[in-house]
Amino acid sequence: MKQSFAVIGLGRFGLSLCQSLTASGQDVLAIDNDEELIESYKEVVTQAVVADAQDEEAMRELDLGNFDHVIVAVGQNIQASMLATLIVKELGAKHVIAKAETAMHGRALSKIGADQIVFPERDMGVRVARRLLSHNILNYLSISDEYTLAELQVENEHFSGKTLAELDFRRHFGLTVVAIKHDTKVVISPGAHATLAMGDTVSVVGATMDVEHLDKKMSE
Amino acid sequence: MKQSFAVIGLGRFGLSLCQSLTASGQDVLAIDNDEELIESYKEVVTQAVVADAQDEEAMRELDLGNFDHVIVAVGQNIQASMLATLIVKELGAKHVIAKAETAMHGRALSKIGADQIVFPERDMGVRVARRLLSHNILNYLSISDEYTLAELQVENEHFSGKTLAELDFRRHFGLTVVAIKHDTKVVISPGAHATLAMGDTVSVVGATMDVEHLDKKMSE
Ligand SMILES: Nc1ncnc2c1ncn2[C@@H]1O[C@H](COP(=O)(O)OP(=O)(O)OP(=O)(O)O)[C@@H](O)[C@H]1O
Ligand SMILES: Nc1ncnc2c1ncn2[C@@H]1O[C@H](COP(=O)(O)OP(=O)(O)OP(=O)(O)O)[C@@H](O)[C@H]1O
Ligand SMILES: [Ca+2]
Ligand SMILES: [Ca+2]
Ligand SMILES: [Ca+2]
Ligand SMILES: [Ca+2]
Repeated sequence: MKQSFAVIGLGRFGLSLCQSLTASGQDVLAIDNDEELIESYKEVVTQAVVADAQDEEAMRELDLGNFDHVIVAVGQNIQASMLATLIVKELGAKHVIAKAETAMHGRALSKIGADQIVFPERDMGVRVARRLLSHNILNYLSISDEYTLAELQVENEHFSGKTLAELDFRRHFGLTVVAIKHDTKVVISPGAHATLAMGDTVSVVGATMDVEHLDKKMSE
Repeated sequence: MKQSFAVIGLGRFGLSLCQSLTASGQDVLAIDNDEELIESYKEVVTQAVVADAQDEEAMRELDLGNFDHVIVAVGQNIQASMLATLIVKELGAKHVIAKAETAMHGRALSKIGADQIVFPERDMGVRVARRLLSHNILNYLSISDEYTLAELQVENEHFSGKTLAELDFRRHFGLTVVAIKHDTKVVISPGAHATLAMGDTVSVVGATMDVEHLDKKMSE
């Protein structure tokens, strides 16, 4: 289903968002008060308009109240970020995501009515820390405080060349193997005879503690 | 296993990284040339030092070549970011992560020897877009270009009150259910008699196309 998106501010965050949305075939209206910027990205989005997000009349004319999602991606100009959020909410926008620079900026945006706040630097700091603290975990998804789905890379002789039956992750680690990736080939719900090779990635699900235990064993 | 981390630059990204690492019990050395900043965060980290990251001698005295991970989280001062990366690599640091402001900054950091580059704004733009494009997908992990693990929320009458046998995700969607979360209770590898309720989250694995198809059906 196609939805309508308006992105205010083509900084690095706003631009990346526009590019990802457009790459997925979505309609995106991009707004920035920098004429040169709009000129250089007008091919990237469905529509690119030079306008000041603090100008209520201009926002009304662009019909910002009727987009499915409005993203206020103006950063350093905190006044513009807050006024733009206020204006689009007053125009009736149902779902407004706003980017915040600091915790206080975030609290103000919430009060003004933003439905969701993104803190790019802070949020990426948390993600990079989690990746640093894992050894072979390439990626993870926490299902709850206690359970995690994780993708680990096989880089340990002890785990390579063995079948899942031999390794018995369930008995030894309390984990279920949900997928194995060998080069670009993926086997979902692999059987007991599936074999792990060096460089493969194995996706497991189970208690976070057990995933961390496996991660340690695979790093020995 | 405890590792040693040095974080250069306590901006929003660097500070968030320090806080996450310290919360996990890791030893963190924080470096910034802003005395007040170091003073206000010295309780947060193991050690906080006022130093100029462009000062080779100071970096050598802090033994930056011997940390397991050095994160160059200096941003806007691109010269400092590049010189700090050069210095710590020359001092022998094995794993250096550097934060980049622009694509060109990132390419320069790679050439200089950074082992990993983080673009907080760009990377969060991609993540926010992916979340906007999903309806009931709370979180996902892409195993490859074609396969995804995803956690979806049950908000549709058609899916609630039914057992997995009745819903038969495998046959109807080509997907394997790896976990169900009901309130805070998680069932891993649920059996055919497990029942879905409104508000539950269900974690599935399979082709990305099939996950998106299920997401659409669950949003109808
Ligand atoms: N009042 C305004 N109306 C429209 N666009 C604006 C307004 N104020 C700023 N912008 C635009 O918003 C964009 C992002 O702003 P800015 O560069 O200050 O934020 P930033 O936090 O550095 O962005 P990022 O971190 O995502 O790169 C810029 O392209 C700027 O021209
Ligand atoms: N030469 C230097 N030596 C040590 N620290 C430095 C140096 N230059 C800048 N810093 C520190 O790095 C920190 C981050 O720098 P800056 O605020 O310019 O980046 P930023 O991109 O805005 O950070 P963030 O986006 O993570 O908030 C600041 O606290 C600054 O004092
Ligand atoms: Ca900017
Ligand atoms: Ca920013
Ligand atoms: Ca800053
Ligand atoms: Ca920044």
